[in-house]
Amino acid sequence: MVVDPDQVPCGTILEAAKALGMLTGLVVTSRVTHATPASFSAHVVHRDLEADIATHQIGDYVLGRQVDLMMGGGKCFFMPNTTEGSCRQDDRDLLGEREKYGWSTLMTSLKDMNDLNKDSNYIKLPALGLFNLDHLNYMIDTNLRKDEPTLSQMAEAALKALKRNAGPSQGFFLMIEGSRIDMGAHNNDPVAHLHEILEYHATVAAVRKFVKNNPNTLLISTSDHETGGFTLGYQPDPHKYPDYQWFPEVIDRATASTEILAPKVFGYKGKDRREYVRTEILRDGLGITDPTKEELDYLSDPSVPQGEIMVFLGHAISHRAYLGWTTIGHTGLDVNLYAEGENSSLLRGNHENTEIGQIMSEYLNVDLQAITKKLTK
Amino acid sequence: MVVDPDQVPCGTILEAAKALGMLTGLVVTSRVTHATPASFSAHVVHRDLEADIATHQIGDYVLGRQVDLMMGGGKCFFMPNTTEGSCRQDDRDLLGEREKYGWSTLMTSLKDMNDLNKDSNYIKLPALGLFNLDHLNYMIDTNLRKDEPTLSQMAEAALKALKRNAGPSQGFFLMIEGSRIDMGAHNNDPVAHLHEILEYHATVAAVRKFVKNNPNTLLISTSDHETGGFTLGYQPDPHKYPDYQWFPEVIDRATASTEILAPKVFGYKGKDRREYVRTEILRDGLGITDPTKEELDYLSDPSVPQGEIMVFLGHAISHRAYLGWTTIGHTGLDVNLYAEGENSSLLRGNHENTEIGQIMSEYLNVDLQAITKKLTK
Ligand SMILES: [Zn+2]
Ligand SMILES: [Zn+2]
Repeated sequence: MVVDPDQVPCGTILEAAKALGMLTGLVVTSRVTHATPASFSAHVVHRDLEADIATHQIGDYVLGRQVDLMMGGGKCFFMPNTTEGSCRQDDRDLLGEREKYGWSTLMTSLKDMNDLNKDSNYIKLPALGLFNLDHLNYMIDTNLRKDEPTLSQMAEAALKALKRNAGPSQGFFLMIEGSRIDMGAHNNDPVAHLHEILEYHATVAAVRKFVKNNPNTLLISTSDHETGGFTLGYQPDPHKYPDYQWFPEVIDRATASTEILAPKVFGYKGKDRREYVRTEILRDGLGITDPTKEELDYLSDPSVPQGEIMVFLGHAISHRAYLGWTTIGHTGLDVNLYAEGENSSLLRGNHENTEIGQIMSEYLNVDLQAITKKLTK
Repeated sequence: MVVDPDQVPCGTILEAAKALGMLTGLVVTSRVTHATPASFSAHVVHRDLEADIATHQIGDYVLGRQVDLMMGGGKCFFMPNTTEGSCRQDDRDLLGEREKYGWSTLMTSLKDMNDLNKDSNYIKLPALGLFNLDHLNYMIDTNLRKDEPTLSQMAEAALKALKRNAGPSQGFFLMIEGSRIDMGAHNNDPVAHLHEILEYHATVAAVRKFVKNNPNTLLISTSDHETGGFTLGYQPDPHKYPDYQWFPEVIDRATASTEILAPKVFGYKGKDRREYVRTEILRDGLGITDPTKEELDYLSDPSVPQGEIMVFLGHAISHRAYLGWTTIGHTGLDVNLYAEGENSSLLRGNHENTEIGQIMSEYLNVDLQAITKKLTK
């Protein structure tokens, strides 16, 4: 594909659903300004322009506010550069401006969400839930995420809100992303990865329950790609045929992500780095009680960059569990595709990834070209 | 799963189809006595007992001859230990005994097959086609396989034979395996692997054509597992995020499998091993014209075992093509499942591997337990 440098911004499914009068939602565990939610709700020339993405999402672009419910992390891009923790280079205060674009509800903690959502209450739309300056914490890092809802909690609250706020036969489009599954794999951290996947499963279970009770709903679950080339069949010795086994208990013993542990190692200022690594990082953090001399040597070397420490820790636990990685990037594997509910048979069989969007468009009967026209006029 | 050491032999789909009066066939590119075809046609306690497997396949076991058409390699297990190239430890001459079990046709070369199959002719069943002592050669090793049919040629001839030999509404069960796709991946040889896959595609195309002309046929295509953890997204530098690219032309330049090249390196007796490796192996064999000093050093060292040379050569070309491997063994990846023709909707969706057998049993309406009973009485 040749991409024109003067890219034509293309209307998204979310915008087209909105144009049909449906309610719209984005629920993610990354920053809401991250690639996937942004691709539904903003039109900028590069995914890293997250401040601009936030501006579009709040409603300040040619189409006006298109999102009725947005939950996840990324609050830093909604705060002016005059406030601590802001990621903006300008002084726009999108949280302050939000009422101008109709956002009636703001939540910044699990408590906020629960207060609005408990029992027969539901979140009034439009609603913004920004539960971390950055991405939400990994599920495994439980002590860091006490004020953050889980993906399944957000999804359940979102489904309730979208249903209750919708007028008769108004309907809704909701995109839910288990965003940090990919990130755990980028780090080659099987612990973070697995716990995010388990939470994604809980989320799918919650959505399936909704679909069961609301049969005129279509659920689609898929991935944009595999990350890491993560497999069973790890080969400890490059010259020896591998044993076909793996040790889930190794994963189960770990209590923290390597994203949290690596900065602790890197930033250690105490007197006995080797002992610190042995006890607080490997034993208490990863459940590893048999560190090798080579591992302790490497991790005790203060010149090793933080990113390399992180991947090294991920491999230390992966190798003990007999799990293999090919890359810290994406692979080209076929990914699974699941669907349930109304017209789910449309998703049967093998599909190119672009066909998923086409199927959604046809199912919703939206006019994407009309949106593209509005965006480019 | 706990396996009883006194394993109960279980009736196979092929045997049960035979019991229903259908014709049966096995077409593979491995030895016909290899794991997959054996699992349809023999009952021994270990897959490596290939001499015993051949004995069952020829018809010398409690059920008698169950296979009507068997094509592939593995002739060595059908020859007495008194003949050159035999793999048997006993002096049984299964090719000599074959008429006792009804085998009317024997083919040992592509010419044999073509002579029997050309124009309106077809192979008379029962027929045995053993085109190599061992596995058939890899597709890429064209000069070694002049007397061997390809998988698609065997499949087309088999379908024609099974259809023409079948009585009114007799029907047939045919298992076709692109056996050496897996083997190329075990060797981490992307060249052998890819060319086997392309031939598998040609075979599927041929079978689909048959299904189109014979709508009361069900085609199922799947794999028992992935091998190698083979992916795009190879990461050249362990500490640097990979570029998302790959170079198919690297694969295209190679003219030989590493299975053929490695013994040449290992067995080299000449005076300039380094120059031999540089020209005849890397340049002429793999199309590599930019060997590194490290590569030449390693491959010029006569103490490196042949198996390690083979994997090293595979990685030399994989890395240049930006293809990654995790293991020389199998992985736990989900594999694709395709079906076409009558009742193909039975195969829709995600299935456990054991369900494929159950679906086949139900579709064919066979009685597996009756076969198991015969085997164990
Ligand atoms: Zn990613
Ligand atoms: Zn294998």
